[in-house]
Amino acid sequence: MMNELYQIITQIEPVDPTWLARAQERLDFLTKPQGSLGRLEELAARYVAIRQDPMPELPTKWVVVFAADHGVVAEGVSAYPQEVTFQMVYNFLRGGAGINVLARYARARVEVVDIGVNHDFTEVSGLIGRKVAYGSRNMAREPALTREEVLRGLLVGVERSEAATAAGVDVIAAGDMGIGNSTPAAALASVFTGRPVSVVTGRGTGIDDKTWQHKIAVINRAISLHHPEPADPIGALAAVGGLEIAGIAGLILGVAAARRPVLLDGFIATAGALVAAALAPPVTDYLIAAHRSVEPGHQTVLDFLGLKPLLSLNMRLGEGTGAALGMMLLEAGVRIYREMATFAEAGVSEKEE
Amino acid sequence: MMNELYQIITQIEPVDPTWLARAQERLDFLTKPQGSLGRLEELAARYVAIRQDPMPELPTKWVVVFAADHGVVAEGVSAYPQEVTFQMVYNFLRGGAGINVLARYARARVEVVDIGVNHDFTEVSGLIGRKVAYGSRNMAREPALTREEVLRGLLVGVERSEAATAAGVDVIAAGDMGIGNSTPAAALASVFTGRPVSVVTGRGTGIDDKTWQHKIAVINRAISLHHPEPADPIGALAAVGGLEIAGIAGLILGVAAARRPVLLDGFIATAGALVAAALAPPVTDYLIAAHRSVEPGHQTVLDFLGLKPLLSLNMRLGEGTGAALGMMLLEAGVRIYREMATFAEAGVSEKEE
Repeated sequence: MMNELYQIITQIEPVDPTWLARAQERLDFLTKPQGSLGRLEELAARYVAIRQDPMPELPTKWVVVFAADHGVVAEGVSAYPQEVTFQMVYNFLRGGAGINVLARYARARVEVVDIGVNHDFTEVSGLIGRKVAYGSRNMAREPALTREEVLRGLLVGVERSEAATAAGVDVIAAGDMGIGNSTPAAALASVFTGRPVSVVTGRGTGIDDKTWQHKIAVINRAISLHHPEPADPIGALAAVGGLEIAGIAGLILGVAAARRPVLLDGFIATAGALVAAALAPPVTDYLIAAHRSVEPGHQTVLDFLGLKPLLSLNMRLGEGTGAALGMMLLEAGVRIYREMATFAEAGVSEKEE
Repeated sequence: MMNELYQIITQIEPVDPTWLARAQERLDFLTKPQGSLGRLEELAARYVAIRQDPMPELPTKWVVVFAADHGVVAEGVSAYPQEVTFQMVYNFLRGGAGINVLARYARARVEVVDIGVNHDFTEVSGLIGRKVAYGSRNMAREPALTREEVLRGLLVGVERSEAATAAGVDVIAAGDMGIGNSTPAAALASVFTGRPVSVVTGRGTGIDDKTWQHKIAVINRAISLHHPEPADPIGALAAVGGLEIAGIAGLILGVAAARRPVLLDGFIATAGALVAAALAPPVTDYLIAAHRSVEPGHQTVLDFLGLKPLLSLNMRLGEGTGAALGMMLLEAGVRIYREMATFAEAGVSEKEE
């Protein structure tokens, strides 16, 4: 399994800046003051450079939502009961969740992957069953996962990236569902960025002050117990991670290896990006931070990865909802690049020097 | 004409907060932690409250772009020659401009109104000819417009709002085209907010330091010459305004009177909103600030109006481009409100108390 993963990692190359410059050259010929479409231009240039295609088609899009449970909910760190994870999976499959609505609007397909939900799904059509375990273990008492489970989780993500690219998908978003998963995300944020747990831990789906203090104590206890190290990303995921985070990290690696951009959603998806970037630093060239979540640790992690979020709409739902909106901005940029007239085509005078 | 305008103004009523609460009640039943879709929820609630419709249809959308010229370009305040205004109008009509691309993506129709372009358009289909004058006069030497021209410009905007609502349009965006128009916008921003001209004046389409200093001096000269007062909005528009700004102000008044939201674009459209709000303070309840422009005065004006921009993407093109993106976020919010399953419908457990 390790070999398979390293094969993917070695395929990931930094984005070639000459392609960015080439794309900007076309953008500068379009009928607008240079740079006046700001980050839409940046998105278009990055897309062209990632795809190495001077005139890319409009992108087809998938949101891949990894669902998993977390043993650490036994410590009382979440506002919702664990069964919400599997109930929401059913909601995804029936099209009634936030991500379904926003992905429909963005014309993106939603793929739902059971990578570690504590439930046996029955009579479900559309669910991609890749259960590695019935959730992680309680990190406050034992490692959340084994190294083998982490590897299997990462490879599920790689496999889903390959399924997407085989289906001709151009742009992929990473989403998550897992009651309790802001706890492993905060733990990983602290491990990889070196910032204190109290700084990167938030209120998840909405816990009160007392539960928030307790959540910080639980994460600190887990870190003291396992000593996860950023130099050993697989060990860190095993110690304090979760299976959806492993799936997201694997998806990111596979998508970057296939030269496609990944839209990151919020805090959980970005924790997956931390792991992916620790395994393969050039991966950050393929990441587009769709939005800044309300979770305080999200900005810390984005800064650490050198990513600037596109949107800041006080969202904190996860599922890929922010990423679906970000996909629309990326597509808007690609449309600008493809469809706007040049000064010459439109007969418009250029800037006076 | 004044009577006609006051009739519109008196129809504008504040948005009823009980409708906002009613909309939030439904949003809180949907399968997500309460408030976790942040500003999308805020947009949905505002839309429901403005329309006073507990289950609104998906909105049909228009972007109304007012084009006009500015005598003050004789002072050398812009990086582009004046003929770009009419050249860009042709570009709009052929569908090659930034606003055409983004409005197509947002599924919004683009209406182009010649309210004061210094050009006789020939052989054009689709242009709405409402020329009040061949541009404004040079504010540095004489009032930019007469009070009668301002009134006619405002009523063109009102008329376009009525055309939109008669066509069944639910959401309207205000856009602009006019070489030199960041000069009147900065002048109006200073007059209405009371902030110094140097604070609210930017580089428009991209002028150098020396031209920027000169632009500030020109605006200060015009203000010293005409003494525009915020208590006399029509007089202020006549002194240092422009016809597209008058059209936008009138459009905003008409749209608010018809209980529909207006998506504001950047600095120029927001200058129109300043005038509209000075004439009819409750109008701000109907305004949605789509984005924050690079123009430094834009944030000053948004703060003055109590508006928080949805997007901050370093854009500074105008035309309604930011507003078209904002329309998509508004529609995303309405879709969330309409299409997400409730906890009861989806069989998902609610938060533990």
